[in-house]
Amino acid sequence: MSNALSSWTDVAGKNPVLGFLDINLRGAGQVIFQNNPLTGLFFLAAIVWGAIAGGQIDIAIGAVVALVIATVTAILLDADKASLEQGLFGFNGVLVGAAVPTFLADGATMWFLLVVGAAVSTVVMLAVSKVMKTWETPALTFPFVLTTWFLVLGAYSFGQVPIASMGPPALPHAVSGAETAVNATELFLAWLKGPAQVFLINNPVSGVLVLIGLLVSSPWAALLAALGAAVALAVSLALGASLASITAGLYGFSPVLTAVALGCVFYAPSARVLGFALLGTIFTVIVQGAMDAGIAPIGIPTFTAPFVFVTWLFLLPKADLQPHPHAPIQGGLFKKKS
Amino acid sequence: MSNALSSWTDVAGKNPVLGFLDINLRGAGQVIFQNNPLTGLFFLAAIVWGAIAGGQIDIAIGAVVALVIATVTAILLDADKASLEQGLFGFNGVLVGAAVPTFLADGATMWFLLVVGAAVSTVVMLAVSKVMKTWETPALTFPFVLTTWFLVLGAYSFGQVPIASMGPPALPHAVSGAETAVNATELFLAWLKGPAQVFLINNPVSGVLVLIGLLVSSPWAALLAALGAAVALAVSLALGASLASITAGLYGFSPVLTAVALGCVFYAPSARVLGFALLGTIFTVIVQGAMDAGIAPIGIPTFTAPFVFVTWLFLLPKADLQPHPHAPIQGGLFKKKS
Amino acid sequence: MSNALSSWTDVAGKNPVLGFLDINLRGAGQVIFQNNPLTGLFFLAAIVWGAIAGGQIDIAIGAVVALVIATVTAILLDADKASLEQGLFGFNGVLVGAAVPTFLADGATMWFLLVVGAAVSTVVMLAVSKVMKTWETPALTFPFVLTTWFLVLGAYSFGQVPIASMGPPALPHAVSGAETAVNATELFLAWLKGPAQVFLINNPVSGVLVLIGLLVSSPWAALLAALGAAVALAVSLALGASLASITAGLYGFSPVLTAVALGCVFYAPSARVLGFALLGTIFTVIVQGAMDAGIAPIGIPTFTAPFVFVTWLFLLPKADLQPHPHAPIQGGLFKKKS
Repeated sequence: MSNALSSWTDVAGKNPVLGFLDINLRGAGQVIFQNNPLTGLFFLAAIVWGAIAGGQIDIAIGAVVALVIATVTAILLDADKASLEQGLFGFNGVLVGAAVPTFLADGATMWFLLVVGAAVSTVVMLAVSKVMKTWETPALTFPFVLTTWFLVLGAYSFGQVPIASMGPPALPHAVSGAETAVNATELFLAWLKGPAQVFLINNPVSGVLVLIGLLVSSPWAALLAALGAAVALAVSLALGASLASITAGLYGFSPVLTAVALGCVFYAPSARVLGFALLGTIFTVIVQGAMDAGIAPIGIPTFTAPFVFVTWLFLLPKADLQPHPHAPIQGGLFKKKS
Repeated sequence: MSNALSSWTDVAGKNPVLGFLDINLRGAGQVIFQNNPLTGLFFLAAIVWGAIAGGQIDIAIGAVVALVIATVTAILLDADKASLEQGLFGFNGVLVGAAVPTFLADGATMWFLLVVGAAVSTVVMLAVSKVMKTWETPALTFPFVLTTWFLVLGAYSFGQVPIASMGPPALPHAVSGAETAVNATELFLAWLKGPAQVFLINNPVSGVLVLIGLLVSSPWAALLAALGAAVALAVSLALGASLASITAGLYGFSPVLTAVALGCVFYAPSARVLGFALLGTIFTVIVQGAMDAGIAPIGIPTFTAPFVFVTWLFLLPKADLQPHPHAPIQGGLFKKKS
Repeated sequence: MSNALSSWTDVAGKNPVLGFLDINLRGAGQVIFQNNPLTGLFFLAAIVWGAIAGGQIDIAIGAVVALVIATVTAILLDADKASLEQGLFGFNGVLVGAAVPTFLADGATMWFLLVVGAAVSTVVMLAVSKVMKTWETPALTFPFVLTTWFLVLGAYSFGQVPIASMGPPALPHAVSGAETAVNATELFLAWLKGPAQVFLINNPVSGVLVLIGLLVSSPWAALLAALGAAVALAVSLALGASLASITAGLYGFSPVLTAVALGCVFYAPSARVLGFALLGTIFTVIVQGAMDAGIAPIGIPTFTAPFVFVTWLFLLPKADLQPHPHAPIQGGLFKKKS
């Protein structure tokens, strides 16, 4: 596999068209941290399969269009070439392009927002990266989350931007007790839908394609994605989350990303790291429930924000574990006058 | 003009009273980034004209009082002298002072909040500047936005702080279709109100005074303000925003600031920079619609937050365009033990 | 007193069990910035007294369990030893452990969330400290606030996590006029409850125990806590805040923390510093009212967030008081090509 990849990289390096294709495929792969064009191809296949199966081909078209626009914007902005070639300016675009047609109705204004959002996602990627690099921490999918929050929230103010499926805005209210039990088949399908919902796709076959895409690039990533989805399933069931959400994979996608990010991408796998990643994955499920309630009054989805916030919190500590003491700050409030 | 300005600066430098006046006039001018006392005078004239025309003279008094208090607070805190002399500790105060009497009813508690808020705006300016300087990025009007959010939101908890005009808090709901068309005169007035609403003034004559104030300091700034307001008008109409908001200039003031900031203040004007500023200006309109919906449940205005967030996102990338790669962090989770 | 403390420190340094006890007691003491095991003992006594008096012993058990778990998590993560020995990894845990049984109903899932939250509070402490150290500023109790917001907000999504006392979510609405007056006894008790509510305890005796705990460590801290609670009482009454909230001490605990933090912990007491701390304390009351209204639609408490945000804003300026000028950024948007 790595020989074939290396040959492809050589070919792509010599041909500008294949090179551009390569960057975009890697961009798709980077949604789950894989700098690998074959992985990206499997991820795009997962989106296309899910979009066709769901009768919403505009989701697949949107994802590809936005991926290309985000990448081209990075080129126009003279973004760092090495980062560009790893696909780091494409993965937020793919997600913007899959999300906008999922939540907004097809039409000229939807495509206008999608194109503007894809270009802006690259600017936001540069901005968030600049800030997070201060602490050697990646931007993750926050550029997608922030950009798309603005795009879909705006729909409530704009009469020419009809909403397809989200909201309506509502105050959260306490729920109590467990719902009717689910059977083993539903649980199995819910487990597979976790990886698919990373791309906003509610389809178990797409989940399998995502896992295969990870496997060809990193067995650890595939394993941790599968384990992360399983942990999320167990915790969300035990806490009594909505069964409709659980069986649609909506409690699974953020924990999948947290498990892969903490367990094998940014830290090298070890017993302690896996324990740390497990704590982060469990906490991601709690944060998913919290953010679903917290965002309900404004009627938009949380996207991958639970993954982003938890993973940032678990990446920031790293090797330097010394907080500022509760003692006077050097220099005090006023400069000493000489 | 620059000779007259230079003579004034000489005179103001020698007379403490005129020097203090100069700092405060520059503080007013810095609301739209102009280190120019004459510009500040035009901006104050725009506020006074709008306040009198609207029968709310306390807005003009509040703006001047808060400007002076914010400046004095900076002096008491030994703030950086060069920044002080450029008026960088006054512009948030002016806006706090114009906003509080606009949204809260006249009375002793309103003035108490205005005075506390004006002093706090200088502390917040220092705090936000400290953070944003890490990435060579300015605080913009965020100190005004944050301070005033707290002041007016508190009114819902305090029985002695009556609300004059904002809210009531409400969940956002989907709107659909375009409203009845507006005529050319209304559009022309809406366009002029954009620059005026930077100072929370709903008056086209004030908009002309703001544009003249910019012109005497920077023709580029005046041009970009006028263009920014026009782009905002076109985009908000095309997306089907509320006509009442559009004709009051409420979709115009943040894009005006974004256009000036990105187009000629923090980047030097060029074809690529103007394209970049255009993208930012369009996105500001979308963010305005999004934030209007998102903030509705708590019943307060967005102030210039859409400008601040978009401009930060478009300023942060700057020359250094390399995100953290999706690869292991140096040092890992645990320190190596020797 | 300091001799006894120094003898204890010697003994604790030689015995691992007493050493662990010492770290945990200091952890409790650090809730109000005191690196002192006796202070921590008084603070724990205040929690136990209040929990028993209120018939909710699980609050006291939760506080101790979470304190120990947070400390152990720091040890497992190889956190900085000097910080650990000062109790800097315990104080957020104590608060998580007191808050969760206050707002969620007793049961297996409540204890699961409490244990996960206590461990996560240490990770969040490391993360927030890493970020804030960039500006030589402490994390304060933000790790407690953020972690517990997620834990209790999740209850609205999880059927197996019953809510004990918070919410229901509601839109804020304008209140007007002052309520019936309170008598001197109620005011006196409200004043004592301010320091107690730092630990989520609504009991005047606990407030006295907290003040004694401060006194044995730092007379300045005790004095500023008492003054902070008094200022908060005066300002909240003058602004017409809810009498039920005022007499429960809910307008007092954040200002107590702000007054101590700004007045004697992070800046050395002086006339100018006390004036600065007074401004911060008054503003904390306003922010408390604002956040109470702003958080109402999602039905969770603000915890110590008003203290954290105001104190951050007032600590960040410190000695370096020079914002970025409103002038071009060095390097511009694009790198110069050679």
